[in-house]
Amino acid sequence: MIPFNKPYLTGKELVYIEDAVKKGKISGNGYYTNLCQDFFKNKYGFNKCLLTTSCTDALEMAAILINIKEGDEVIMPSYTFVSTANAFVLRGAKIIFADSRTDHPGIDENSIEGLITSKTKAIVPVHYAGVACDMDKIMDLAKTYNLFVIEDAAQAIDSFYTGKDGISKPLGSIGHLGAFSFHETKNIISGEGGMLSINDAQFADRAEIIWEKGTNRSAFFRGEVDKYGWVDVGSSFLPSEIIAAFLWAQLENLDDIQHVRKLHWEQYNMALQDWATENEIQLPVIPSYATNNGHMFYLVCKNLQQRTAIIEKLKSKDILSVFHYISLHSGPFYIQIYNGDSLLQSDRYSDCLLRLPMYYELDCTNIINNLKNEY
Amino acid sequence: MIPFNKPYLTGKELVYIEDAVKKGKISGNGYYTNLCQDFFKNKYGFNKCLLTTSCTDALEMAAILINIKEGDEVIMPSYTFVSTANAFVLRGAKIIFADSRTDHPGIDENSIEGLITSKTKAIVPVHYAGVACDMDKIMDLAKTYNLFVIEDAAQAIDSFYTGKDGISKPLGSIGHLGAFSFHETKNIISGEGGMLSINDAQFADRAEIIWEKGTNRSAFFRGEVDKYGWVDVGSSFLPSEIIAAFLWAQLENLDDIQHVRKLHWEQYNMALQDWATENEIQLPVIPSYATNNGHMFYLVCKNLQQRTAIIEKLKSKDILSVFHYISLHSGPFYIQIYNGDSLLQSDRYSDCLLRLPMYYELDCTNIINNLKNEY
Repeated sequence: MIPFNKPYLTGKELVYIEDAVKKGKISGNGYYTNLCQDFFKNKYGFNKCLLTTSCTDALEMAAILINIKEGDEVIMPSYTFVSTANAFVLRGAKIIFADSRTDHPGIDENSIEGLITSKTKAIVPVHYAGVACDMDKIMDLAKTYNLFVIEDAAQAIDSFYTGKDGISKPLGSIGHLGAFSFHETKNIISGEGGMLSINDAQFADRAEIIWEKGTNRSAFFRGEVDKYGWVDVGSSFLPSEIIAAFLWAQLENLDDIQHVRKLHWEQYNMALQDWATENEIQLPVIPSYATNNGHMFYLVCKNLQQRTAIIEKLKSKDILSVFHYISLHSGPFYIQIYNGDSLLQSDRYSDCLLRLPMYYELDCTNIINNLKNEY
Repeated sequence: MIPFNKPYLTGKELVYIEDAVKKGKISGNGYYTNLCQDFFKNKYGFNKCLLTTSCTDALEMAAILINIKEGDEVIMPSYTFVSTANAFVLRGAKIIFADSRTDHPGIDENSIEGLITSKTKAIVPVHYAGVACDMDKIMDLAKTYNLFVIEDAAQAIDSFYTGKDGISKPLGSIGHLGAFSFHETKNIISGEGGMLSINDAQFADRAEIIWEKGTNRSAFFRGEVDKYGWVDVGSSFLPSEIIAAFLWAQLENLDDIQHVRKLHWEQYNMALQDWATENEIQLPVIPSYATNNGHMFYLVCKNLQQRTAIIEKLKSKDILSVFHYISLHSGPFYIQIYNGDSLLQSDRYSDCLLRLPMYYELDCTNIINNLKNEY
């Protein structure tokens, strides 16, 4: 059986968890949380980072930080995970769904401006499969219309965007705020887990307060205030040190993990080119401004029937492939209030996109051969 | 050095975490999550249980489930943790603060009815120190005025209430919903962690959806629907299997942990009676309808000066005692909008309550002797 995903252990996870326990503090915001946060700041130059219990929670923090209120509008792609939308719906926002690009599932940057109204508060680009959206265009729009940009970088660890200035920037460092996931299906994992990157310094102090349940506890322990109390809304967004210790073992091996995943990705991509063309299947496109982080290898089939047939063929060989994302604008929760246009590309990816197995310990050879021989 | 708290490991935590990893699934809602949830259902008769990343998150789920909206009023004690309030503030509620009892910090059940208005939606009793509020009176009020009751049982695992029917009921099983904490300072721990108990069956299906990010994913995996998608608001409330595996090792030893903690509590209580009387210090009161779960041993000092002096004396002997809870009605966040009465008991506990060290591996003898000799 070849599973779709297999969590990879670097070998030190249990050692660090044991150490965290020995340190006598396993609630959040301790030794390993700081190690992980410093790692991200140093490696990617984020202004400030806060670990969260999930990427969903990081997005919820972002929605609170930009003061989303009833009636505000937030623009995002329809082809994304429910949490991208729910984080803002929970604060009262109306979600305005944009279509995806024809060449890849990221938001069509040229469709955004037509969706902006006087109520628009934010744009949430989703770096699908770790491939950058066209951030220059999105940041320019944000500047023109005075909007916030929250990067949904759930899949986008260690991936980059090079804009018109020629500088390669890590995803999650470009918008005002960015949200990452360490869910077990991601490159770097902690079971459940996430992180908020805070690039706009205006949010740094309040982010820490919201993270610590609406208290100024962190400032208190730094000696900046003489008692701590209830100063804002907030939640328990911080993960246990057990989770942070696990994550630290992963981060120590980030370069190796990324290297190996990209090799798998290249192997799929090289081996399947001719087969894909013959079968009218689209392989992943990496725009010139983007990098590939080896997060996901997917096929865009020519139609739903073809996708279903490939899934079945692979399944008959004990290989599990999966699809995802019913376009959010047509999901049961939103279909009754959605009054926008039809989103053809989003619906096409919903019907036709298929994710092949991708994990560190994968051997793609068998999957490639089965695709070529069996379909 | 005697710390205030020391997380206790039963010995199997790392074994079960390793097993969870070997099972190939470390995201939420897996093998250990189910073990823990079933344990609680079987031991305490909760209708349904869902593990959460924190008690805060369990309270947030409750606020979503009872459809808290802008302008709704929620009654709770002012002497509680910020999350009790924030979970409802995040949904737009106005918090109406009640005073505590004179004999213990739980909500004064006789003060509630006067706070009920046509906007009141829920009462949130907090079982402070694991000691039950007078649930018969609270449930009667809820019935009369058609309100929901959410038990904040953060500290109240394995504690009970016996009402007028003479039946001993576990805390968290009496209100419509209950919220528990497994934060490292609690009896049973997972670093950060919590659980929602769902007693009113009307909430069972929707709770699962909200827990799974607003999707009907759980129903899909049970084969009840043929695809899953966005059907409601929600968040990523479910903890990693790593956390659930840790928790399972604790739950296997619940009876032993409870036994030992209650012995410490009894030792404090017996040894300090005369000393407390001499110094006009109030020891914990357990009403006849309540049980003691060995969560916390506290002193109510005669004034702030006395508390400060005791803290300093103990600190000079390397013993850490702590106080907590600035009354929420007088916290920086709420003081400007609070228009209720002064809450004398709540403020008294803020100034005078002191928590003594309490953990499984504690030896109280030294602390008791120091209190008696030094103060």
